[in-house]
Amino acid sequence: MGMSKDKKKIYKPSPISGFPEWLPEVRMVEQQWLDHIRRTFESYGFASIETPAVEELNVIAAKGEDVDKEIYVLERLQASEDEKGDARLALHFDQTVPFARYVAMHFNDLVFPFKRYQMQKVWRGERPQAGRMREFYQCDIDIINPDNLPISFDADMPAIIWETLTSLPGMENENIQIRVSNRKILQGMMKTLGVEDSQTLFRTIDKHEKLIKSEFDNLLTDEIQKLSDTEKKTALLGKIISNFLKQGELVKNSKNVEEQIKKLKNLFLEDIEIKEFGFDKTYFEGLDELIQVLESLSHLPEGAVVADLSIVRGLDYYTGTVYETVFVDDPTYGSICSGGRYDDLAGSYINKHLPGVGISIGFSRLFDRLRNEGKLPISRKCPTDVLILPPRDEDEIANMKRLERILRDKGLNVEVAHGKKLQKQMAYAEKKGIPFVWFAEDGQVKDMMSGEQESADAASWNPYKEH
Amino acid sequence: MGMSKDKKKIYKPSPISGFPEWLPEVRMVEQQWLDHIRRTFESYGFASIETPAVEELNVIAAKGEDVDKEIYVLERLQASEDEKGDARLALHFDQTVPFARYVAMHFNDLVFPFKRYQMQKVWRGERPQAGRMREFYQCDIDIINPDNLPISFDADMPAIIWETLTSLPGMENENIQIRVSNRKILQGMMKTLGVEDSQTLFRTIDKHEKLIKSEFDNLLTDEIQKLSDTEKKTALLGKIISNFLKQGELVKNSKNVEEQIKKLKNLFLEDIEIKEFGFDKTYFEGLDELIQVLESLSHLPEGAVVADLSIVRGLDYYTGTVYETVFVDDPTYGSICSGGRYDDLAGSYINKHLPGVGISIGFSRLFDRLRNEGKLPISRKCPTDVLILPPRDEDEIANMKRLERILRDKGLNVEVAHGKKLQKQMAYAEKKGIPFVWFAEDGQVKDMMSGEQESADAASWNPYKEH
Repeated sequence: MGMSKDKKKIYKPSPISGFPEWLPEVRMVEQQWLDHIRRTFESYGFASIETPAVEELNVIAAKGEDVDKEIYVLERLQASEDEKGDARLALHFDQTVPFARYVAMHFNDLVFPFKRYQMQKVWRGERPQAGRMREFYQCDIDIINPDNLPISFDADMPAIIWETLTSLPGMENENIQIRVSNRKILQGMMKTLGVEDSQTLFRTIDKHEKLIKSEFDNLLTDEIQKLSDTEKKTALLGKIISNFLKQGELVKNSKNVEEQIKKLKNLFLEDIEIKEFGFDKTYFEGLDELIQVLESLSHLPEGAVVADLSIVRGLDYYTGTVYETVFVDDPTYGSICSGGRYDDLAGSYINKHLPGVGISIGFSRLFDRLRNEGKLPISRKCPTDVLILPPRDEDEIANMKRLERILRDKGLNVEVAHGKKLQKQMAYAEKKGIPFVWFAEDGQVKDMMSGEQESADAASWNPYKEH
Repeated sequence: MGMSKDKKKIYKPSPISGFPEWLPEVRMVEQQWLDHIRRTFESYGFASIETPAVEELNVIAAKGEDVDKEIYVLERLQASEDEKGDARLALHFDQTVPFARYVAMHFNDLVFPFKRYQMQKVWRGERPQAGRMREFYQCDIDIINPDNLPISFDADMPAIIWETLTSLPGMENENIQIRVSNRKILQGMMKTLGVEDSQTLFRTIDKHEKLIKSEFDNLLTDEIQKLSDTEKKTALLGKIISNFLKQGELVKNSKNVEEQIKKLKNLFLEDIEIKEFGFDKTYFEGLDELIQVLESLSHLPEGAVVADLSIVRGLDYYTGTVYETVFVDDPTYGSICSGGRYDDLAGSYINKHLPGVGISIGFSRLFDRLRNEGKLPISRKCPTDVLILPPRDEDEIANMKRLERILRDKGLNVEVAHGKKLQKQMAYAEKKGIPFVWFAEDGQVKDMMSGEQESADAASWNPYKEH
């Protein structure tokens, strides 16, 4: 033992910014969260998949997203000459690209509609800023089907997410809301006015809650000028988009979903300026889909879901329904669970038309928020239910082994104390939060919470009966 | 939809060698394995921790292991000037280094003896060869305690691993064996003969099952020549080591653990040449510890554990007990679960003496072996127990939602069919392996396996009662 001590060189490690790590008592709640989410996803029939931590850089690049600065690529510390031509590998930055690649690659082995969930860590090589994570869990569900996916699937997502989020340990009293819209509505209005590509407009509107009003207004004005060729059109577009956002506020603030639907049905139908152009059919499709989704969610509690036309999402691949989820009292915190309908996500990798719909919980960010606010039900430092203090008599060890087996077969987690000092063992149980100590020699059990001690028979003992 | 089709550019992705990925039906069994292992580890009181996928390169380097060529370092695809001085990050290649770093860093917040399990993916940037994985799961348990850790903990490891491995789904009929030894025995013999550092000798002997006999003999001869300064000593060392391995074979082939212990107690005591030098106390410590571990494992089935003196492990940090686990009928496949006792694993990061003992299941390699051999109980492609076919009458939808809720509250996984074509829905259930289809309109359930169909009441229905 002295051997290594003499020449000991110590390198004191520091936490790596953006890569969170929890103590066992926090990790235990994290596991409860992951278990609960998995359980709920499976109860709706979603199958688990897991993809490697890495994708070929070409696969990520094929999606054409502007995520270059977030990508971590791998290098072997000692790369040899013969691998210079190998494909470059990058850590995945979300689960959507890997999922799309997975569906394309295993297309012939999957049964459609394919419903999958995926709960893995993802990595984003951002410069670490206040609270920004570079490694975090995402929990995603998606449904994908060749050629055609009924709109009724779009209504499943908010219902599942509502059930999942509101019953997470520690989330019970949080006031959250799922906001739903449909990109086709604004897209249809723009088409009506001769604007074919609304992507940059969506990206701008996506920032409306993150920017202060004057900044947002300036950005929007710039954007509109780029979209129109005459001053008259600029003025009209500006008026219509601002009107759209105002109408959106009115819809959102209606007293319930029935009222929202009623307002949506009449949205802009009386607007003379738009009427002049004649509505594009995309507009009616979008309204109709949004109304269908809302109607299917009427069984959720009031306020759980709201139509919010200002929700558009920043990613290019959404083509219809879009979702965001916010803390009602702190909407600027941003969305904790987002997603939407896409037309052709796997289309970069396979010559098929594969529409789908999906939603993603930003797990680690949500978990860390509740942890910081002291809202997680953190209790024990280990899963042990019973600490057995072994008998002094060596001949009794076989009996103790039987006791261990009986308790474990009941589903209890059991540890046997090593060493002989009673006081030390009791302190161990207390510090780790182990609820019961079993004195094998006397056949007695001590309830560490109440301090009560009594004789117990392993076969009939049920510690959590009255707790 | 046509929009994106016109300009579609397809990048057909290929599997990345060494990064396995499973279809949903295989992943489902993988989850059962992970759940089972976790459940068993927790039933012995081990707490979960998870560390980031990366460590500082300095932390990995501080361990001084020769793993450079296996390390993947991260680079941001677009790194900016201001981060040139940042610590380099590398993907962890095992869970031992991260665990040691974790204990050092969180020392004041942990309760000792600290018992943790860790089940994460690790990465090794090797050139991909036949069957070599570059990303795989490891499942580790370790116990660590400042200054002193009783030897009785060393006996826990094989017992837990035996219970874990033999009840994994698909592993029930595999003939496996845990081989135990203690490095101090050979180390003590070498000390007796004036050889202080046995590390390189351990590394050589570790290869004895991987090499053909002539290769191993040559390697051993070279090694022995390096260790001795006279020809006489070379001859003596050679004779003693070969005698040690022969005696080891005899011990191992004894008919049961009692016989093994008996042989160990007399090991070399009659050897005149060693007697001449006088035995170093390390030798007796090692024998004594090995015998204690074997005696504590007498409750396991015959053949589960065997003393095997040729087991030494290749890693430098082991200082006492060492374990390997093999398929008895295919020992050249190598160890599927290995570990041992270490004196000072976290000592590179903190000025404390922290002895510990641990063992690690090479999860993915084991799983993939059984998968290749067709031994995994692969069945359903999704977790769904019941597929509900909704009623045609819209007014009945509320009743169907109640049915869904009742079934889910029983712990069943339930999917509602979308779309109206009966034949398509039945085909879907069949292809995905969903065991029951519920016709909401008629209140009838069809058992897809037997083909039987009968009326059912949601509240009292119990599908798995008779299965």
